Amino acid sequence: MTAIERYFSDHQERFISEWKEFLSFKSISADPSYEGECEACAEWVQTHLSKMGFKAALWRSDFLPVVFAERKGNPSKPTVLFYGHYDVQPVDPLDLWKSNPFEGTIRDGRMYARGAEDNKGQVFFFFKALEALIASGVDLPTIKILIEGEEESGSEALHACASTWSDQLKADIMMVCDTDMLEPGRPAITMGLRGIAHCEVRVYGPKMDIHSGMYGGVVLNPLQALVKIAASLHKDDGSVAVPGFYDGASEPSAQEIEMVKAAPIDLKHMSDFLGVPLAGGEPRFEPLVRRGLRPTLEINGIGGGYQGAGGKTVIPSFGMAKLSMRLVAGQDPQKTLDKVAAYLQSVAPVGTRVEVGDLAVGGPALRLPVDAELLKVAERAIEKGFGIKPVYIWNGASIPIIPKLAQASGAEPLLVGFGLDQDNIHSPNESFSLRQFEEGYRYVCGFLSEL
Amino acid sequence: MTAIERYFSDHQERFISEWKEFLSFKSISADPSYEGECEACAEWVQTHLSKMGFKAALWRSDFLPVVFAERKGNPSKPTVLFYGHYDVQPVDPLDLWKSNPFEGTIRDGRMYARGAEDNKGQVFFFFKALEALIASGVDLPTIKILIEGEEESGSEALHACASTWSDQLKADIMMVCDTDMLEPGRPAITMGLRGIAHCEVRVYGPKMDIHSGMYGGVVLNPLQALVKIAASLHKDDGSVAVPGFYDGASEPSAQEIEMVKAAPIDLKHMSDFLGVPLAGGEPRFEPLVRRGLRPTLEINGIGGGYQGAGGKTVIPSFGMAKLSMRLVAGQDPQKTLDKVAAYLQSVAPVGTRVEVGDLAVGGPALRLPVDAELLKVAERAIEKGFGIKPVYIWNGASIPIIPKLAQASGAEPLLVGFGLDQDNIHSPNESFSLRQFEEGYRYVCGFLSEL
Repeated sequence: MTAIERYFSDHQERFISEWKEFLSFKSISADPSYEGECEACAEWVQTHLSKMGFKAALWRSDFLPVVFAERKGNPSKPTVLFYGHYDVQPVDPLDLWKSNPFEGTIRDGRMYARGAEDNKGQVFFFFKALEALIASGVDLPTIKILIEGEEESGSEALHACASTWSDQLKADIMMVCDTDMLEPGRPAITMGLRGIAHCEVRVYGPKMDIHSGMYGGVVLNPLQALVKIAASLHKDDGSVAVPGFYDGASEPSAQEIEMVKAAPIDLKHMSDFLGVPLAGGEPRFEPLVRRGLRPTLEINGIGGGYQGAGGKTVIPSFGMAKLSMRLVAGQDPQKTLDKVAAYLQSVAPVGTRVEVGDLAVGGPALRLPVDAELLKVAERAIEKGFGIKPVYIWNGASIPIIPKLAQASGAEPLLVGFGLDQDNIHSPNESFSLRQFEEGYRYVCGFLSEL
Repeated sequence: MTAIERYFSDHQERFISEWKEFLSFKSISADPSYEGECEACAEWVQTHLSKMGFKAALWRSDFLPVVFAERKGNPSKPTVLFYGHYDVQPVDPLDLWKSNPFEGTIRDGRMYARGAEDNKGQVFFFFKALEALIASGVDLPTIKILIEGEEESGSEALHACASTWSDQLKADIMMVCDTDMLEPGRPAITMGLRGIAHCEVRVYGPKMDIHSGMYGGVVLNPLQALVKIAASLHKDDGSVAVPGFYDGASEPSAQEIEMVKAAPIDLKHMSDFLGVPLAGGEPRFEPLVRRGLRPTLEINGIGGGYQGAGGKTVIPSFGMAKLSMRLVAGQDPQKTLDKVAAYLQSVAPVGTRVEVGDLAVGGPALRLPVDAELLKVAERAIEKGFGIKPVYIWNGASIPIIPKLAQASGAEPLLVGFGLDQDNIHSPNESFSLRQFEEGYRYVCGFLSEL
């Protein structure tokens, strides 16, 4: 047993009781009535880091406070910026919880609470790893810690102020533990996140809803126009048909494709779980490549006319579809969104008016180079600590604040998280096993020691 | 002043007070809580016709009673069956009514009440015309009167029993006064009604709503499939693309097209009213021909995924569209519906399951031959009484019970109604002017005298 492992077992009980304190704050950022709980939670984090020897402050803006803490270390080592969040998702439906979501409860080796994993659990193993490293006298680099309070509600403070705060955020490596692994005991490095942008297309026809007997075949039904427009977004082979949509999108390299396919993901199981074949997107790529390394354009919702029981013989005056796109490295989200909006406008048929609204850019994609020096360091640390090579994941989802912070800090992101599907994040009975917690702790200690 | 005109002015006051009695029944067939009012209304009609010398009965089935009355006349003349309905639409929103919808109130020469026009007003001028003809000793044919109580809620009793009752319904001419004219003082003959059928297409994808980051580009989004399927229902030129949809649809004749175009309908005004150009349907026909003499397939509603404010990055498990078709003479509604359903099933892409549900046939189209002898009689009566030729209207809407009754009775339908746009039928402040009432009375007297 190493000193680090011994420290964990010697202090585990205290770790758990402190973790429960952290979980007891109802820091639901999406609901303004919990603003006081968010404040209190930020102060708790600040105090906790101060006691650990950090110079900790609350950064204030028009939004919820951001905790920033720093501990000077060996200047010849690369400066590390850790990013996490203290806010959590709402808890409803409350009656599906087996125990109070704000009273951490351990059952069968798992901590049950809102935020147990996302992200308080994954933040807290980082804190406890640092505590162990400091107590063990390890030669650490300068560590900066940034814990925001609005990740679940748009990261408003950081989006607004990251560039203002960029001097203080300056770092070489940005560690994030807000992602998943595929199986316990084998850490996973998230190599990519997709960018995101969305909009809503609205098709207007006659001034009012009209009778389909009186006017059917006389005027163009705006729902007929809407489905024609929406259908024209994709070619029959499933690829996106909007001119210029793929502009700039860098092609997956042979090495990336090989690494994506090497991940222990059972496509048969995924298909069974979803109940459908994996038959969407561009046919020239395999499903996991499409997910991680190719952009997509999706209809998230559509509506117009009568949707109740039975029939109603109406030609409605209006129909709409909500669209979102997931983008990859090389695509500029604003430019791609503009192209989609321009296309939608350009195909409005005579007899309709097309409006594109709710245009919003989340952020660009993140894609780590497979030959980065940082990856080799992480791999070495993981092989030493876990006796196995990490898994590489190109995640199809988006965490827009990460590319933004990477840019503001100048740091190279390293995303290694210990979440698993069964953690039920964002759902009732969220949990995080003590094993996952300890693995996260072990990874952080190993990686920071390796620098 | 003719005897018929004198009878009207001598008895007008009583006509109005009796009409108000008829209007006082809350005979809302769609709402079961008004069943008693419907019964009472049917009994009032029965009593009224008995007093006029008819042999009147209530026909009972599992539904609301139907009033049937008969008065034997000159057997060498063609037997006339008059069809109307004593039920009315609901009255909400009640606060928009300027006077009680069940207390007929005359303002500026118009009777305001629910049913003032549709159809109690147009039934009652028929009754009063008969009274005048009988009092004047006119040589009348055998007259049968059928007044149902469920026209506003599906004509269930008649649909269920019309064939059972066909012996009693046997007639040569079926008079209906449940339609409109285009301008006061000029009766209009409705030459056609479209048939109707509908269904709902449902497209199923993954078992549950899934994350568009995790699965966008991996599986086929059922909304993408839905819009492709719905878009494929129409060709780019606006005509219907479903194989066999137009099978049997008889082409409008040159004479019909000429008569349709002769109607005093201002297309510029229609377009301004709707706020769109008349740019739907098959381009090879003009708007009024498309409405009256060509079939159409409309999307009445569409829905799936997230439709609330802002965006939600979801791939939904389900999407649906409600479809209805208006059909013309020669098309069999059941066969056309079957073709549409079979087509929808046949185009389901891999990764989706398509279901077609809520299939319902309203009824076939009605189309009167332009050279029918009956039309000439009606024209003569109208020219004598009004000093003007009638307008011919091919109506795009559907009254499915009329073709059904025409078949059961063996009678040739003659649809001449005195409604106008400003009557606000089905809306608050429904009304019917005394002038329209008197014109209807005059038309009925003239037509029945002409036989």
